[in-house]
Amino acid sequence: MKRLVWNALDEAGREAALARPVQTHAVGLNEVVRRIVAEVRRHGDKALLRFTASYDRCELERLDVTPDEFKEAEAALDPTLKAAIREAAGRIDAFHRAAAPAAVAVETAPGVRVERVLRPINRVGLYVPAGSAPLPSTALMLGVPARIAGCAEVVLCSPARADGRCDPAVLYAARVVGVHRVFKLGGAQAIAAMAYGTASVPRCDKLFGPGNAWVTEAKVQVSTDPRGAAIDMPAGPSEVLVVADALAEPAFVAADLLSQAEHGLDSQVLLVSPSDALLDAVAEEVERQCAALPRAGIALGALAHSRLIRVDSVAQAIEVSNRYAPEHLILQVAEPRVWLAQVECAGSVFLGAWTPESVGDYASGSNHVLPTYGYARSHSGVSVASFQKQISVQELTPEGLRAIGPCTATLAAAEQLDAHRRAVTLRLAALDAEVSLA
Amino acid sequence: MKRLVWNALDEAGREAALARPVQTHAVGLNEVVRRIVAEVRRHGDKALLRFTASYDRCELERLDVTPDEFKEAEAALDPTLKAAIREAAGRIDAFHRAAAPAAVAVETAPGVRVERVLRPINRVGLYVPAGSAPLPSTALMLGVPARIAGCAEVVLCSPARADGRCDPAVLYAARVVGVHRVFKLGGAQAIAAMAYGTASVPRCDKLFGPGNAWVTEAKVQVSTDPRGAAIDMPAGPSEVLVVADALAEPAFVAADLLSQAEHGLDSQVLLVSPSDALLDAVAEEVERQCAALPRAGIALGALAHSRLIRVDSVAQAIEVSNRYAPEHLILQVAEPRVWLAQVECAGSVFLGAWTPESVGDYASGSNHVLPTYGYARSHSGVSVASFQKQISVQELTPEGLRAIGPCTATLAAAEQLDAHRRAVTLRLAALDAEVSLA
Repeated sequence: MKRLVWNALDEAGREAALARPVQTHAVGLNEVVRRIVAEVRRHGDKALLRFTASYDRCELERLDVTPDEFKEAEAALDPTLKAAIREAAGRIDAFHRAAAPAAVAVETAPGVRVERVLRPINRVGLYVPAGSAPLPSTALMLGVPARIAGCAEVVLCSPARADGRCDPAVLYAARVVGVHRVFKLGGAQAIAAMAYGTASVPRCDKLFGPGNAWVTEAKVQVSTDPRGAAIDMPAGPSEVLVVADALAEPAFVAADLLSQAEHGLDSQVLLVSPSDALLDAVAEEVERQCAALPRAGIALGALAHSRLIRVDSVAQAIEVSNRYAPEHLILQVAEPRVWLAQVECAGSVFLGAWTPESVGDYASGSNHVLPTYGYARSHSGVSVASFQKQISVQELTPEGLRAIGPCTATLAAAEQLDAHRRAVTLRLAALDAEVSLA
Repeated sequence: MKRLVWNALDEAGREAALARPVQTHAVGLNEVVRRIVAEVRRHGDKALLRFTASYDRCELERLDVTPDEFKEAEAALDPTLKAAIREAAGRIDAFHRAAAPAAVAVETAPGVRVERVLRPINRVGLYVPAGSAPLPSTALMLGVPARIAGCAEVVLCSPARADGRCDPAVLYAARVVGVHRVFKLGGAQAIAAMAYGTASVPRCDKLFGPGNAWVTEAKVQVSTDPRGAAIDMPAGPSEVLVVADALAEPAFVAADLLSQAEHGLDSQVLLVSPSDALLDAVAEEVERQCAALPRAGIALGALAHSRLIRVDSVAQAIEVSNRYAPEHLILQVAEPRVWLAQVECAGSVFLGAWTPESVGDYASGSNHVLPTYGYARSHSGVSVASFQKQISVQELTPEGLRAIGPCTATLAAAEQLDAHRRAVTLRLAALDAEVSLA
């Protein structure tokens, strides 16, 4: 890990210190994805079966997971894992329910009732990757808020293994959270299928979930086509920034850095501390702990473009973090709650020594689908609101129209929208006529 | 206006009946916008001054509106208009404040505190068009929620008139809602300036507001660039769908249809009713009222691709509306509130005879920046939440880690993420060691 002293850096050096790994895509990735999407739109299920055969190396006869396959998955799964899936789902449900938006109604003037009502997005498509390993936790993170929102049709796509089956833990998690249909589909073809629909796969209004470069590019393409589908958020590689002071436990800090680094070669890991001793100790611990990891190769790759940054103070560390806008921010400092108030940009924050980042990935109840790659400056993680529309409603009584009609007419006239003005004045005239008749 | 009977249409006919006008952009619009964006990134203010000279036909020496210009605008403006702007701002403030997200904190297990905290997006850029007419109301609709959210820097761009001044009502509205800086910039160059920053214009994290095809395309381009800026939502031409029954007042319905039609040639207007007599009467009224409008030419153009649809019942009318997913939905029916429960997709809903759509454009308090072009299936209008990030926070006590650590470790193991598991087990071991020492 590269070691830097923040105050010794000029502006360009600071920019470079916080630069994310450039996403170097295979040349022509856009075009390949564009072709896959076009093929799926043109040939539907046929194209899906063909792409699944060539990319996932499995020959399928049908794309949907059958009731028997769900049963088999449930029977095959370790009871401890099933219990953990149900436990995590329960806690995710509890937090997301508490944080769900509420309907609102106010009178903004006598006789002017203005409301916000909530409606589920009808059909949503969840993508659960299964690249280096299947991710049942992602099925929970997407399926639970979809269920709370009340989406009428929840579809999930996850690539099949070479034996033509989906991972049993993913299937079990999908069942636990009430996903309606699961399809054995991965990559750009899964996104295209859910965005445009095929004979087998229903067309979805909005797509969710992480994925590799193909999935991400396909999501961007369908989201910029008015005939396509909305998406949860733009995506980039995962990342963590840890702020630790001299009193932090180096073994804990190192474990958290490594749990981010093992995600992928393009993961980014930053440790920011005012203590040289802590930075030394963590560097040593990282090396020691990494050696024992099954995914040590991946972790070492990620650590190669990661950084240890020495700052003047915890306050400056928070400034650095706000500038970086990390997906995950861990505060292993004395009184982390005091510093939380200074945090401006982050996807999810972990306070204190006993809150490893992995509890947020699985079981604390918060969502792990979070803004990466600097998008935490402007985006939030997935929540129940991501699966809803907020519709505004207004209802005026005659008294209400008398109250706000003149203001409306004045502004419409200023904007030279005379029909807007007349829609008000015509009604006010009708009210006046009624009064004079009475 | 074309007249159709819903039940006489086959699936293709229904699809066609609800088709939106295809957005036929000038050939090469994408490329022109790409070039404008690239020029602004390369040459900054110089490019902005050049584009302003050629597109807005005005030679400027500086791009920002000076304090003197704000004072002049305020002095020049009609007191009635100023009062209407303040009145509308007050009502928009009241509704948006009531509907703003709240912080949340729950315990999902003993010792596991999970929260959602809110933070303003630091720097936001508002775009206020001034094409056929300036739109001070849009400055209010974007500026009020930005102020409530507490954004540190609120920038507004609006094209200057030929005399080099911005519209005084827009400037006054910007001042009323606390916009920090206003720039005389329009079109794709305004979007590029706010997304990437120049010597004059601060770089913004998220951009908001309606605009023409150039603005819309520029917003899409900067939002799909990780170095660009987020945007409020995708945009298309404005539209209204009115559901009216036999008892609706034809003059009111016609006035509402026209107030949408006058927006632009590509606006779309649909009337859906179970009553042939009402459809006849409205068609007649539209013709009569339209003749008297200053913008009759635009309204007639929009009406040319608009439709009167006869349905079997109000229930079927709501089904048609849900399929269309209108930006504005007006329910001029008996007991509109009963039908509101059936509404699944719409930007903003107007209930009953005394609630013209124009009150929502200006003064009821709801927002008029709404999802168009079918995006109401998956998007919501602008609100305070659009100007905030929701950050999740978790804090575990040792007891909390004991409660959810095992579940976390089981799931991490199932996903073959061993470092994630160890970040938990290492801490649990440390806790056990402490206990055995005690």
